[in-house]
Formats: sequence, structure tokens, C-alpha cells
Amino acid sequence: MSANFAKCGSVLITGASRGLGLQMVKHLVGISERPQKIIATARSPDTAQKLHQIAKSHPEVYVVPLDVVNDASIEAAVQEVSSIVGPAGLNCLINNAGILIHGDLNSETREGMMTTFQCNTVSPLFVTRAFLPLLRAAAVCAGGVMSVNRAAVINMSSLLGSVELNREKASSYRVYAYRVSKAGLNMVTRGLALDLHSDGILCVVVHPGWVQTDMGGKQAPMTPQESISSLLSVICALSEKDHGQFLNYEGKNLPW
Amino acid sequence: MSANFAKCGSVLITGASRGLGLQMVKHLVGISERPQKIIATARSPDTAQKLHQIAKSHPEVYVVPLDVVNDASIEAAVQEVSSIVGPAGLNCLINNAGILIHGDLNSETREGMMTTFQCNTVSPLFVTRAFLPLLRAAAVCAGGVMSVNRAAVINMSSLLGSVELNREKASSYRVYAYRVSKAGLNMVTRGLALDLHSDGILCVVVHPGWVQTDMGGKQAPMTPQESISSLLSVICALSEKDHGQFLNYEGKNLPW
Repeated sequence: MSANFAKCGSVLITGASRGLGLQMVKHLVGISERPQKIIATARSPDTAQKLHQIAKSHPEVYVVPLDVVNDASIEAAVQEVSSIVGPAGLNCLINNAGILIHGDLNSETREGMMTTFQCNTVSPLFVTRAFLPLLRAAAVCAGGVMSVNRAAVINMSSLLGSVELNREKASSYRVYAYRVSKAGLNMVTRGLALDLHSDGILCVVVHPGWVQTDMGGKQAPMTPQESISSLLSVICALSEKDHGQFLNYEGKNLPW
Repeated sequence: MSANFAKCGSVLITGASRGLGLQMVKHLVGISERPQKIIATARSPDTAQKLHQIAKSHPEVYVVPLDVVNDASIEAAVQEVSSIVGPAGLNCLINNAGILIHGDLNSETREGMMTTFQCNTVSPLFVTRAFLPLLRAAAVCAGGVMSVNRAAVINMSSLLGSVELNREKASSYRVYAYRVSKAGLNMVTRGLALDLHSDGILCVVVHPGWVQTDMGGKQAPMTPQESISSLLSVICALSEKDHGQFLNYEGKNLPW
């Protein structure tokens, strides 16, 4: 199954200058069933050469500055995106921007915990809230059943955010800040799923796999291409049964 | 079943100047099978009149200043507690201090999220880490199987921290910061359970029920007496099978 976003008017991906965010943009521009508008945001667009290179040959790609921890930056991005998508609104918001600070029980710091939480947990909530008018407009404009073609919030979490799976063998990676931030993001998603259900906005949290990126490291078993190809196929097929659920890149449910 | 801490050398309770922390101290001094030393910490001991009143007539109660969000305060508390417990170490650390800031999707603020996370999630981790030398001393000194009589960390979480249970009817209380902070505390506990298992330090996270305290409000179904009487019975009976688990005040396992 390959990803089909032909009926999706617009997708916004945060943290798209590198890693999985960049790979999403690359993959989407490479398929014929692509969204009409692909909005790729980056904290520092000036240094996002790869993104600009893609945008140069793909007029459907819009590069927008967005620092997810900065509310003024979020507001400016909402204004810019509003003028890009127009009255059709924003169909799919992918909260992908995130950080990983390595820290075990001995080396973890309060600052590391707080910084990670701010970026990985708090920011997806406030980015989503800021884009709600555009998501609600899309939900009304597109109508129909819940899907990314109508209106959706996809939060990029991790298997490491599963409290259940943080035990014995499954838990060799003992990092506190990141795990806690992703468990928190799972809770945020669950809250959004409750709050936005009546608006028809689909909310799902996903695990992209352990991937060879700057964050995942070279020893990871999957390439960004493999992860994102599979994940986007899952995302484009999401429906109401997935609302408020935690899915991996193969579409399998994960425990909280 | 009533609580029996007769074989427990020392218990430390954070946030003991009011609410459930104060009730724990009240309950423990009222039973004959009490711990030998009850260390009640408070952010501002000067204004903790009820605690001082109890300590006046109960020489086994020690009131110690501890602001859980302040590392210098934590270090000072560790020094003071070290001299109270001596080479026997600290047997049971109850991370009870916590805050609740009401905030739904519209009213939630970054500051509220961060402040709640700092107090409810980050601080229990760093308080525990700071007291580890005393907990490890107790684990060695007391020996035997895992229990609060040997060495234990009990984190006070909440049903509201269960991602699984934050859905449909069970989710009428739509507060983000508190839910996220407690989901994070559950993950912290799970990490501690892995990291401290080899030391013989029992780590458990508990839900005390919805209780008539300043935090829980008057409409709550349980009194502090009911909650703490039941919860302390559960805590004193904890064993290795409960290590890394999420239990309610009746000892029932809760989903993450």
C-alpha cells in the first residue's frame, strides 16, 4: 500500500528541515497522489537548504518559519499558513518537531527534563490550539467522515513513550526526559481527541520506528525512507476507529 | 486490614503540611504499629502549624524543610534526614508533594504546564535521586525481600494520569497540565523501578482516590481519613510483585 493524499488539500509538518520531517516532505513531493499544498515549517528556515531546494522545484511546497516553543512565532506561522490555505483551512497538522537529550538516572538534569518537555509535550498542544481555527475551517469545508482529508492532528511520539513497554528487556534505553515527554504527548493527544471529537478533527499519536536519523543514530534498524513510506501509508488511511489511539508505522496499536 | 509499619524504621513524606500528606502523618502517629521515625517535610515549615502541633506530642515526628523544586533545599533536607536516620538509612520515601492548576484546552498556559510538570514530575525524580544514598543504606542495612520495611519509593500519582482511562465518560475532568504531569510521573516511576531494582529498592506509583482536600474539592466522594487509611494499608503490604506497578488505594492495578 502506498500513501495516497490526493484528496487532501493541505498538510503542515513541523520540524521539517531534517530527519523524519524532511523525509516526509521528500516522500510527499515524490508521489503522484500528493496533497495540494505541503507546508514545511522550520525553526531556522535560513539554514534549511534541503527544504528550499525541494521547494524550488515543487511549487506545492511552502517553507514557513516556526519555532514551536515560541508563541509569537506560532502566531506568525498561523497568519502565514492562513493566507496559504485560504478558506479551505488546514487539513492535516503533523506535530513532528522534537528533541532528544540523552540522560540516564545519574546524568539527567532538571533543565534537560524541562527543555524536552517544553518542546516535545507542551508545544504540540499549543501549536495545535493555535491552528484550531484553520483545522475547524477544514473540518467544515471538507465535511464527511474523520480522516486526514478532512481535518487531523498527528502527533509524532515514540515507543519510548509507552509506560507499559518500559520494563525489563524492552527498556534497555533508559532515558528519562525523552520518555517522559512522549508519555506526556500521548496524554496530550488523548485530551485533544476528547476535546476535538465534536469538531470532527481526528487526533492520533504515532510511533515512526527506530530510524537512522541524527536523533535515532546510525545503529537504528530502519532508514528514514522505510519509516516514512510506511508511516504515511498508515496516516493517509486513518479513520474514526483510530481517533485517540497510539499506532506504530505499520498501523498496529501500541499500549500506553 | 489496618496499616502495620512496626518493622519500618523510617518514613519520609513530602508535602506534609496539609492535604493527604498531613493526613498520612496524622494516621501514622495514631496507630500502635507506627514507623520508628516519621519525617514530615514542608516547603514552609514556619506556617505548618498542624504539623508542629503533632510533632510536639509525638517525638517520633521530625519536621524538615523541603521545597521539592529547589535543589539546594533538597540537599539540605538530605543532610538533615541523614542525621535523623543515621546508618540505618531511610526506608520509605513518599513523594506526595504536588500541585493542581485547573486548565482546559482554552485556558491552559505554557507556564501552568511547566510549573505543574516541574513540581509533579521532575521533582519526584530529583528528590528520589538525592535520597538514594539513604535509601541504598536502608536496603543494605535492613536486607530481606523488597518492601517498605527495607527500602521503597512511593510516588503519589492519580487516576487522572492514566492515558488509557482518559476517554469518554471517564474523562469528564479535562485538565491538561495535571494529567500530563501524572502520566509523566508514572513513566518516571517505571524508569526508577528499572534503575533501582538491583538495589532492592521497591518503586510503586499509587492513586489515593478522589479525596476531599484543598486539591480534590468538597464534592469528592472520599474523606482524607478513608483514603489514607486504605492507602497506607496497601503501602505497608507492598512486595516485589508490585514493583513498577500503578495501584489504587485498594491495591488494585490501574492501566497506564
